[in-house]
Amino acid sequence: MSPPPDDLRLALVGLSRIVEPGHRALYAAVAERGPVAAWEALRRGQPCGAVSPELRAGAALRAEGYDPAEQLRRLDDFGGRLVCPGDDEWPQARLTWSAQPGLEAPPLALYVAGSARLAGVVDRSVALVGARAATVYGVRVARELALGLADRGVSVVSGGAYGIDAAAHEGALASTGAPTVAVLACGVDVSYPRGNDRLLRRIAREGLVVSELPPGTTPTRGRFLVRNRLIAALSLGTAVVEAARRSGSLATLQRARLLNRHVMVVPGPITSGASAGCHEQLRHPDHPAVCVTRVDEVIDSIGAIGVDAATPLRGPARVRDDLPETVRLVLDAVPVRGGAGEATIARAAGVSTLAVQQVLPPLVLHGLVERTQDGWRLTPLGAGRPASPSRSGRPG
Amino acid sequence: MSPPPDDLRLALVGLSRIVEPGHRALYAAVAERGPVAAWEALRRGQPCGAVSPELRAGAALRAEGYDPAEQLRRLDDFGGRLVCPGDDEWPQARLTWSAQPGLEAPPLALYVAGSARLAGVVDRSVALVGARAATVYGVRVARELALGLADRGVSVVSGGAYGIDAAAHEGALASTGAPTVAVLACGVDVSYPRGNDRLLRRIAREGLVVSELPPGTTPTRGRFLVRNRLIAALSLGTAVVEAARRSGSLATLQRARLLNRHVMVVPGPITSGASAGCHEQLRHPDHPAVCVTRVDEVIDSIGAIGVDAATPLRGPARVRDDLPETVRLVLDAVPVRGGAGEATIARAAGVSTLAVQQVLPPLVLHGLVERTQDGWRLTPLGAGRPASPSRSGRPG
Repeated sequence: MSPPPDDLRLALVGLSRIVEPGHRALYAAVAERGPVAAWEALRRGQPCGAVSPELRAGAALRAEGYDPAEQLRRLDDFGGRLVCPGDDEWPQARLTWSAQPGLEAPPLALYVAGSARLAGVVDRSVALVGARAATVYGVRVARELALGLADRGVSVVSGGAYGIDAAAHEGALASTGAPTVAVLACGVDVSYPRGNDRLLRRIAREGLVVSELPPGTTPTRGRFLVRNRLIAALSLGTAVVEAARRSGSLATLQRARLLNRHVMVVPGPITSGASAGCHEQLRHPDHPAVCVTRVDEVIDSIGAIGVDAATPLRGPARVRDDLPETVRLVLDAVPVRGGAGEATIARAAGVSTLAVQQVLPPLVLHGLVERTQDGWRLTPLGAGRPASPSRSGRPG
Repeated sequence: MSPPPDDLRLALVGLSRIVEPGHRALYAAVAERGPVAAWEALRRGQPCGAVSPELRAGAALRAEGYDPAEQLRRLDDFGGRLVCPGDDEWPQARLTWSAQPGLEAPPLALYVAGSARLAGVVDRSVALVGARAATVYGVRVARELALGLADRGVSVVSGGAYGIDAAAHEGALASTGAPTVAVLACGVDVSYPRGNDRLLRRIAREGLVVSELPPGTTPTRGRFLVRNRLIAALSLGTAVVEAARRSGSLATLQRARLLNRHVMVVPGPITSGASAGCHEQLRHPDHPAVCVTRVDEVIDSIGAIGVDAATPLRGPARVRDDLPETVRLVLDAVPVRGGAGEATIARAAGVSTLAVQQVLPPLVLHGLVERTQDGWRLTPLGAGRPASPSRSGRPG
């Protein structure tokens, strides 16, 4: 796939500047009309899908005097780059999900600093997050887990904050096994918090610094929350090392849950308030977190993921032979003619609707499934016609 | 119900002396022939159900010169008593279960020291057990949980050992809310371990000391293991405070699991080997332990128990109105005519076979269900004929 043309990149930069990340109506409008049309409309305050008039007005104000090309030059000077859908290193499957309550829209594009390929780095990754007000115990545990994970080739994703986040990055940097990824709630060129300046600059050199906010953007409370879904989405699972009740790290864990990623917590002394949020997650009524105490247990958990979005799909033959069971079940349940909705496919496949929503985007991307007026159906490639005209084992 | 006659008590004392507790073939033989016939046969080395010739020979050897009446007098001198099925204070439902792998037979009778009624004390009880090699953290946590539970009227059951057990008893003794129960792997008059002598004597005065071994019996490794099922069985749930991997406390937790009691663990630092067994139980593949960190959470757990064996059954009207759902479902699934096996009842009721096995004994005891050649069926009382001839809401 050739990289997206410049006008598309400029539009994505412009949109990242004039609307806050995670906005669902904007995401829907971009999916429908494309980034260029959305940007051209919004910078002028014109109607754009379901984007509200208030937001349009705000977007037009922010767009005044703003030059995306100038922004891209500044990014380049800093050593960063824009990564967007269609780029080789865009982790498509990780960054595609259906709208659902409690979960913001996927990112439109990412600003990245660091030499490694983003998709490759997050292919086998775990988010390790936790309290800023960490204890000596938590810092020690986060550092050791991160070091052990990196030694085993697992990238550690975190938020670059004080406490557990910093300990996780530091632990991972002590290994040469896999780069660490800092996902920020500000521009990749902004050192926040200031005290982690050297750490963040080191991560930009030896790992990756990632943000969906343009360079120079400062963090806000809202941006931290929206950022959390990116930490969860980019990883196969999220592990919380220390979190008080109602801690922000638990918001990341909840997003991991909504994204059907593995949710894990590290326990601690019940006499420590810094572990109370972790213990609470072990008692979650519907979807309790898995207790992890060693690197092996974390790797066991992420290895058991139902749909490893990183699994390459190379067509029906490979689909039949090597695919995770969920993907196979979903593919078997998508009709050849007409079309079926996600709930119908889920019932036919015997998997959750969420699993269907997770599996469909990569199947579409690889040309095996397509959308019709009536829902989803197999493409000729997906139906296996070119490679294997008689497909055995396919239900009715 | 009038207490069992003397010859029955003497036979039970005799049997407790000549066969180790928990023996399944002996339990089956006693259930079939009664304790008196079993005792008369075994003391002479004669055939007795499926009891093996080797065991019969050993039993006859142990019976030589043994006088159960003399034993009962010694027990009386010590201030203890024999509690057996049919006695008011015998907790029938707690001490009745079907044979299953990994679980020894129920006790035939119990030796008890202490003034409280056993059935009343264990009515609302939790087992709090853990490592002998406890840490300062574990001892503190066990003591505080036990004190809090007793303050809330929950009896704390433990094994009288060093470490967590002792801390649990001590914590409970610091409250006047509920007596504590020490279940020993030796006679109730034997202070083991020696260093807990004062503690055990205090429990005999202020709580209950319980054993199925006759006075004067010393502990063995095997007796500790068999004793563990009693700790689990007498309680609504078992909570392990600290346990290394492969600790004996985990054997108690496993028996609680087999007995369909609540299984709980208190987490701790992952850097402490003394909590590793607890964390492992949170990751149990089929039936993970519940993580508890506060008294409220323990009480929530035991309050949610499906079949609270202590719930009084007073006939169909009450059964319909007030019973735990599992009991109601099982009662609805037992046929009026013919008979159904436990698995059939479980399928009809939509509950586990284990739940059926737990629910049936108290239903039999209260005259609502009876055994036939073909399995289980409702009695006229259970079918509701005397009280309510037209029973609505009964399937098929």
